[in-house]
Amino acid sequence: MPFPARICAFVGRFTDPRVGESVALLLPHLASRGVEVLVSEEVPVQAATGPYARVEERAIVERADLVIAIGGDGTLLYAARLAARRDVPLLGINRGRLGFLTDVMPQDVIASVDAALRGESELDRRPLLEARLQLGAGEAQASLALNDIVLQRLATGRMIDFETWIDGRYLNTHAGDGIVVASATGSTAYALSCGGPIVAPNLDVLVLAPISPHTLSDRPIVVSARSSIEIRLSERPETRGQVVCDGTVLGELAGGGRMTVRLAPQTVTLLHPGGYDYYRLLRSKLHWGRGSADHSR
Amino acid sequence: MPFPARICAFVGRFTDPRVGESVALLLPHLASRGVEVLVSEEVPVQAATGPYARVEERAIVERADLVIAIGGDGTLLYAARLAARRDVPLLGINRGRLGFLTDVMPQDVIASVDAALRGESELDRRPLLEARLQLGAGEAQASLALNDIVLQRLATGRMIDFETWIDGRYLNTHAGDGIVVASATGSTAYALSCGGPIVAPNLDVLVLAPISPHTLSDRPIVVSARSSIEIRLSERPETRGQVVCDGTVLGELAGGGRMTVRLAPQTVTLLHPGGYDYYRLLRSKLHWGRGSADHSR
Amino acid sequence: MPFPARICAFVGRFTDPRVGESVALLLPHLASRGVEVLVSEEVPVQAATGPYARVEERAIVERADLVIAIGGDGTLLYAARLAARRDVPLLGINRGRLGFLTDVMPQDVIASVDAALRGESELDRRPLLEARLQLGAGEAQASLALNDIVLQRLATGRMIDFETWIDGRYLNTHAGDGIVVASATGSTAYALSCGGPIVAPNLDVLVLAPISPHTLSDRPIVVSARSSIEIRLSERPETRGQVVCDGTVLGELAGGGRMTVRLAPQTVTLLHPGGYDYYRLLRSKLHWGRGSADHSR
Amino acid sequence: MPFPARICAFVGRFTDPRVGESVALLLPHLASRGVEVLVSEEVPVQAATGPYARVEERAIVERADLVIAIGGDGTLLYAARLAARRDVPLLGINRGRLGFLTDVMPQDVIASVDAALRGESELDRRPLLEARLQLGAGEAQASLALNDIVLQRLATGRMIDFETWIDGRYLNTHAGDGIVVASATGSTAYALSCGGPIVAPNLDVLVLAPISPHTLSDRPIVVSARSSIEIRLSERPETRGQVVCDGTVLGELAGGGRMTVRLAPQTVTLLHPGGYDYYRLLRSKLHWGRGSADHSR
Repeated sequence: MPFPARICAFVGRFTDPRVGESVALLLPHLASRGVEVLVSEEVPVQAATGPYARVEERAIVERADLVIAIGGDGTLLYAARLAARRDVPLLGINRGRLGFLTDVMPQDVIASVDAALRGESELDRRPLLEARLQLGAGEAQASLALNDIVLQRLATGRMIDFETWIDGRYLNTHAGDGIVVASATGSTAYALSCGGPIVAPNLDVLVLAPISPHTLSDRPIVVSARSSIEIRLSERPETRGQVVCDGTVLGELAGGGRMTVRLAPQTVTLLHPGGYDYYRLLRSKLHWGRGSADHSR
Repeated sequence: MPFPARICAFVGRFTDPRVGESVALLLPHLASRGVEVLVSEEVPVQAATGPYARVEERAIVERADLVIAIGGDGTLLYAARLAARRDVPLLGINRGRLGFLTDVMPQDVIASVDAALRGESELDRRPLLEARLQLGAGEAQASLALNDIVLQRLATGRMIDFETWIDGRYLNTHAGDGIVVASATGSTAYALSCGGPIVAPNLDVLVLAPISPHTLSDRPIVVSARSSIEIRLSERPETRGQVVCDGTVLGELAGGGRMTVRLAPQTVTLLHPGGYDYYRLLRSKLHWGRGSADHSR
Repeated sequence: MPFPARICAFVGRFTDPRVGESVALLLPHLASRGVEVLVSEEVPVQAATGPYARVEERAIVERADLVIAIGGDGTLLYAARLAARRDVPLLGINRGRLGFLTDVMPQDVIASVDAALRGESELDRRPLLEARLQLGAGEAQASLALNDIVLQRLATGRMIDFETWIDGRYLNTHAGDGIVVASATGSTAYALSCGGPIVAPNLDVLVLAPISPHTLSDRPIVVSARSSIEIRLSERPETRGQVVCDGTVLGELAGGGRMTVRLAPQTVTLLHPGGYDYYRLLRSKLHWGRGSADHSR
Repeated sequence: MPFPARICAFVGRFTDPRVGESVALLLPHLASRGVEVLVSEEVPVQAATGPYARVEERAIVERADLVIAIGGDGTLLYAARLAARRDVPLLGINRGRLGFLTDVMPQDVIASVDAALRGESELDRRPLLEARLQLGAGEAQASLALNDIVLQRLATGRMIDFETWIDGRYLNTHAGDGIVVASATGSTAYALSCGGPIVAPNLDVLVLAPISPHTLSDRPIVVSARSSIEIRLSERPETRGQVVCDGTVLGELAGGGRMTVRLAPQTVTLLHPGGYDYYRLLRSKLHWGRGSADHSR
């Protein structure tokens, strides 16, 4: 990232009033500093409060020195996959509620963006996962994910059966609603709802967390992020699953279908305001440390 | 149920070889005792080993004194909803692996069926749940369930938000994959995979078990089976859910849609072989009591 | 309870400044209304701000029309066992943090106590559990509990093995740190930390929640409160356990020792301020309903 | 380890008949191969079936080329701390039930011991943890552990409050029964009963798993094994905790007391029979992969 940054890409749902507020604050500020702003053509924008250029969605990161994601963690996940192509650094501004990934509070927007433009933010490099679906005849479908890659049953009342293989070695046959393969970053997202552990974000590990597993001892397992994970849907013809990367559907798996998850060659660089403390973020998001003094035991 | 029973309805996937084996065993035996056998027209049957009459699916329990479900618990759940119309008693024969509901082992088929025909089985009356979806304009869609009624997100990467109301009082707003409303009978099925408790089957309670809830303190709750449960999907237009009764899709709920769950007026009567012991069944199904002597603490 | 109530017993740690504040507020108020206040001789009290009589701990409820517990839920649990002898109603005033049982907020103390004296509070009758330890030779040790009765290992690194029996029928052999037998009232206390469900307080059920069980399928089970629960410690001579009722040690169990838990003949009557809503209390205590809108799935 | 190994140390409870059987098998066999056997003076031994030398407990590994632990995982944990002084390799023979650490089956004893003596076993180096209790005035108490280091409340009905610090940074304040700090090796022991994940044994991570935590979002966390973990008991005078290393009590912590956990400089080398497969061991120990085909969803 060249400093000072001259071109910013904005990502978000600009019709959300709280997002619009931050946009309205930033556009004139960035104009006054001579920083150009890019916005995807596909995103509806309300009455502009400052200048910006419209570019193609896929081209948004081609010229940008910095991506500013405004919204919730979902917005940042989307931006991360765009930014990954050139590893443009990402700043996440939340709409009032702290996110795990969008950790600039609305009142700190100007100061944090200025710091980012000057290259004074804390850099936080996070690995990306890559899901690849075998579609037969040498074809495959692939996608990146910062948080997690999920195999889930298609909406029916039935469980799916599938096998997990780690580096070519058979791990287990599972029955249930599916499985989450989460990065350390994603350990506090869907995997946490499935009983997975919190993982310090600098660790090179993956969490495999079965979703509502039929077998009660089918517990989350932590493996090396250098592993190649293969998930094979059972051969039963009625079995069908869906693969979801960071909340976006990648494709379907039919009975006998296979998906692999590996570390992607790309990474993402998050920018944090000064004094970033992951543990403080955890305490805040998980409501830790409240009122342990008064209880009935 | 009149004794001795003269007419049996068979329910199962007769093309499954293990089910076929039990059918082949039972047909000549029942013929020799002068017991008539009814089978749904809709079910494919392989080379018969004895006489039976084909009747319409919905009519299968109209004349029967006894329903014999052969297969897994899924087969018995299906049979239970048929049997509920006239509360015809149900005998569940498993295909080799003990089920929570199909507890006649293949080697005990003849003896258990004979005991059932003579009216010497243990009677075990179980309540049924009724799900009702409000479809607007006074219309509704309803279904019975022995195990559970599930609201689940339609296959997307997104969570659904919904409110729970108990007897008209607001309980909570949930975000996650959905919620299971289970009878005591169903507490060992899907609800158990969602962290719900095991409930003794004679208790008049329901379990509400959130599925992969976003909030970690959103835990299963046990309420009176006399309660009326209402579940309201959030108003967001993109929100869509699906309602599943005992594994069979009942219908969809759009944003703002409502579902109620109550005790049904109907009940189901399960027949058990002599010496039925629910706790022994639990121990067997949950692999309890194995090898606690040797561990590393 | 005769109305208007003329005699109140105070229970609490009066040396805690926040408790002292409520006492200082109440004593002159009650004196002005001609209500007599009793305090246990055993409790240290700081400079009094109004008149009260000192009585023996065990006699505290003999004359009182109303027991006012000031402090946390632990204080109310203690008061409940005193009050149970004559079923004197109990009002629980918390020290600033809402409890499951102490639900009068400090700012509402005067109004709530006045309402209680006039007999205008909501009555909420809760069952009590009784633990009984067999000590051999016909001797036994017994105690009441409002929340829970716990068998736990004595402080060593080793697990304990024990059997559970329900109404004389064998349930399971457990290995782990022990087991919590909780009333519906106690379902939100220790049992919840052990993975037990929340139970609506009006249900006649008990929760048996194993503590850190060795076997992953050894899950909480809900049984009828009319059941007699027996817990038998394994015969191994080195096995020793401790029985704790509502946080107070009742006694020890040696290898082969037995404990029974039943519903006690006594009950406890909690008084609630008007508009008491158990579900609202749950939402407040469990931080439900916060910020489900913003997440990274 | 010099090959062929000439001196073996035996560790186990030799009065256990199943252990005695393996001893009776091994002593003459080893004698016939000219291998000397050492047994601790402190261990009661029944009628010997072959020659062995008695040595001091602490000296048992000083001369040995190989330690053979016979019994359960607890026996191997004990042997591991002895063996760690000189990193003498360890072979674990179980008494009939496969352990996570004792993976030589009784029928394979001779073949596995012969392979170990010849240096043909699979070597599996595992890190050790070191717990250190600050006792004031510069004094400290320390111990090694292969599986886990546990801070637990002393037997009372009360919870303990404590803080966790990772590399000098504050993580959280916990209330509950205590906390397990487990190595990857220990992730399948006590930590698993506390809701911790399974961790592949080659990963350089620790699991911090709170024991029956009061706060439901107080979930297990995975951190780097290079971290220094500090646990500080709250200052309240009545608070007292106990520190347990691999099931053996190390000492007590009073209110305000501190414990640190780090990777120890020593390691342990486990020997496995050929074809060792950790995932197969997991499947066997956790009863995975049984009967997922038949269920009631």
